[in-house]
Amino acid sequence: MVEIIEGGVTTPQGFKAAGVHSGVKYRALDLGLLYSEVPASAFVGYTSNAVKAAPVQVMMKENSEKLSAVVVNSGNANALTGRRGIEDAQAMKQAVAAELDVGPAAVGVMSTGLIGRFMDMHKVRYGISRAARELNSGREADGLLAEAIMTTDTIKKECAVRVRLADGTLVYVGAISKGSGMISPHLKVLHGTTLTLVTTDATLSPAFREAWQGILDDTMNMVSVDGDQSTNDTCILLANGLAKSKPADKDPAFVEALELVMTKIAKTIAIDGEGATKLIEVQVTGAETKDDARLAVKQIINSPLVKSAIFGSDPNYGRIMMALGNSGCKFNLDEVHLTIKGGDMEVPILDSGAPVFQEERSVEVVRMAMDNKEVIIAVDLGIGKESATGWGCDLTYDYVRINAEYAS
Amino acid sequence: MVEIIEGGVTTPQGFKAAGVHSGVKYRALDLGLLYSEVPASAFVGYTSNAVKAAPVQVMMKENSEKLSAVVVNSGNANALTGRRGIEDAQAMKQAVAAELDVGPAAVGVMSTGLIGRFMDMHKVRYGISRAARELNSGREADGLLAEAIMTTDTIKKECAVRVRLADGTLVYVGAISKGSGMISPHLKVLHGTTLTLVTTDATLSPAFREAWQGILDDTMNMVSVDGDQSTNDTCILLANGLAKSKPADKDPAFVEALELVMTKIAKTIAIDGEGATKLIEVQVTGAETKDDARLAVKQIINSPLVKSAIFGSDPNYGRIMMALGNSGCKFNLDEVHLTIKGGDMEVPILDSGAPVFQEERSVEVVRMAMDNKEVIIAVDLGIGKESATGWGCDLTYDYVRINAEYAS
Repeated sequence: MVEIIEGGVTTPQGFKAAGVHSGVKYRALDLGLLYSEVPASAFVGYTSNAVKAAPVQVMMKENSEKLSAVVVNSGNANALTGRRGIEDAQAMKQAVAAELDVGPAAVGVMSTGLIGRFMDMHKVRYGISRAARELNSGREADGLLAEAIMTTDTIKKECAVRVRLADGTLVYVGAISKGSGMISPHLKVLHGTTLTLVTTDATLSPAFREAWQGILDDTMNMVSVDGDQSTNDTCILLANGLAKSKPADKDPAFVEALELVMTKIAKTIAIDGEGATKLIEVQVTGAETKDDARLAVKQIINSPLVKSAIFGSDPNYGRIMMALGNSGCKFNLDEVHLTIKGGDMEVPILDSGAPVFQEERSVEVVRMAMDNKEVIIAVDLGIGKESATGWGCDLTYDYVRINAEYAS
Repeated sequence: MVEIIEGGVTTPQGFKAAGVHSGVKYRALDLGLLYSEVPASAFVGYTSNAVKAAPVQVMMKENSEKLSAVVVNSGNANALTGRRGIEDAQAMKQAVAAELDVGPAAVGVMSTGLIGRFMDMHKVRYGISRAARELNSGREADGLLAEAIMTTDTIKKECAVRVRLADGTLVYVGAISKGSGMISPHLKVLHGTTLTLVTTDATLSPAFREAWQGILDDTMNMVSVDGDQSTNDTCILLANGLAKSKPADKDPAFVEALELVMTKIAKTIAIDGEGATKLIEVQVTGAETKDDARLAVKQIINSPLVKSAIFGSDPNYGRIMMALGNSGCKFNLDEVHLTIKGGDMEVPILDSGAPVFQEERSVEVVRMAMDNKEVIIAVDLGIGKESATGWGCDLTYDYVRINAEYAS
């Protein structure tokens, strides 16, 4: 039984967090630190974008199996910064290592913010030193770290669950994340700019990497705000084993708990997409392959025409089929069923490829279903047994405003 | 020597056009007809979207090598309309055939507008009958047809050129097009919803199909307003041979003329993208393969973040590299040069992968270059000799407004 509890990244035993203002941003918190009292097994997913930010390059190269701390700054992505950027990312690790008396290889680093500017290392070093002194556990510390990694985010993204493993141990999983624009992560585990930190006091073996990739593929990698994958996406899971459980790698309750946390984080990122007023969930069922189902979900969730139609509750459902047709997913139009759900309404749109409605009055029903904070587009392809679900948001005036003014 | 002249689709000899109000739309012209006095060799490109509108399905199935007329309606796309849609598209061809005394197989049909509604054939038949009586040549007739096929278009898209072939014959090429949203054509020739009609009085052999695909790939298929490929995209080239030239298939002057016309039409579609305030041209050079170059162009031109940055003249050029990194195109960041051009300014941004600017003041120069009606993003990958150019537009408040309210 997985139980959702009030908590965050320091809810599992032995984790501490801090968030401070270093001066990279004008006023807001902009530097965060996460620390585990004992070295934690680290499972990291990185952006698949060929243009990788300096911190991503540095972490991928070191590929540490254990991490004791992760430093995160916002305001500057340290991307497109060449050799100097690499040196700065390494210097951030070294500064944390010196403060916390651990090896530099045991320090993870993540950055988010503007691309193409050098880091102001004077400010960053000052921030690291302050954050190290302010490390703490509890809800206030969780909140400060969550706030320090935000960019255009409007809500803090954190959650925590408690779950009893098969061996009787009670373990906790906590997570925080940021991400609002340039969101279409496609994280690859080696050992999304979504930055996500997940902590647990359960014990995990190195072999958990593969399962972690599977969970990322079903959760974080199914979120898209704008189809633009960042140069900085990173998702770090730290398992410090302090609950003294047996390895929880294959414990169904633990996997369920982790999936629940990651799904919640994924949906929160979509809800808080830049300018978003609505969460869109796309469910594709009856596909021949899992890849087909994911292709279809992604194409629908990324279509600017679908997204703006949902913003305006405009019952222009043909656009959903247009997007499906462009996805490369295999289907036969005569088998397709399309339903739009919103609030407590569930409106069939296409039945075996044929439109259910023609009258203007009945189209009004579609509009009413779309006029909700959460709109579900359910497509049954009817030719197979595979399915996928993804999350996105509507395309609004505010998305344009935010992104026309970002660097300014 | 290709000469641009004031003209349109009836400028080449033997073509007549008409545009009328049939009543499918509330007030605007909504039904157009193009007629060639003699059967013309037809070269047609259709949407690659797996969900194809009824008129596209009907035309692809018949695959006529000669066409005498093309009927186009706007206001209803006749897409997602099942068997009844197919019958309606066939009925449109039959109605035109009866009016003009030609075989139904010699009539092309194109539709654009709302998806998922049945055609009102009573109105369409009335429109066809009126249009057939009003067929005429000259600028007024050109304009009526151009207007009848518009949906959210704000400008008529037409152009004409005159060119002397190698055999001394003077031939004309004219074209009209519509397209403003759901624009990311990927037209495939068998023998983009962009609807395009191109006429010429030159003579072309059936083998011209392949060359036509090449021209479409470099022109219409490199336009993207929103990355959403329509269910209805169709582009028809009619060559009626009335100039009595030798086959012009390989005449460099003719090919140049046709490319010029198609490039002009492509750019006009991008300029008139829904809500657009700026034309964006993306030039990728130095790619290893043509496909790589096209991938990179498409990814950059479709990025909502790049598009909204250009709307706001926001010098956030990191987004261009983010998009390049997501394109799947092969490159080495250390070899990449990026330049932004606007007005008479040409601003180097990245030099061998390193940012040229760091100071806020110099970033202002980028903003000034972006603050033009036409912004060119030039990326030299520096690893090969292939190149591609594409056209798009900025993402604006008006794009959202138009598409949040379309069906309403």
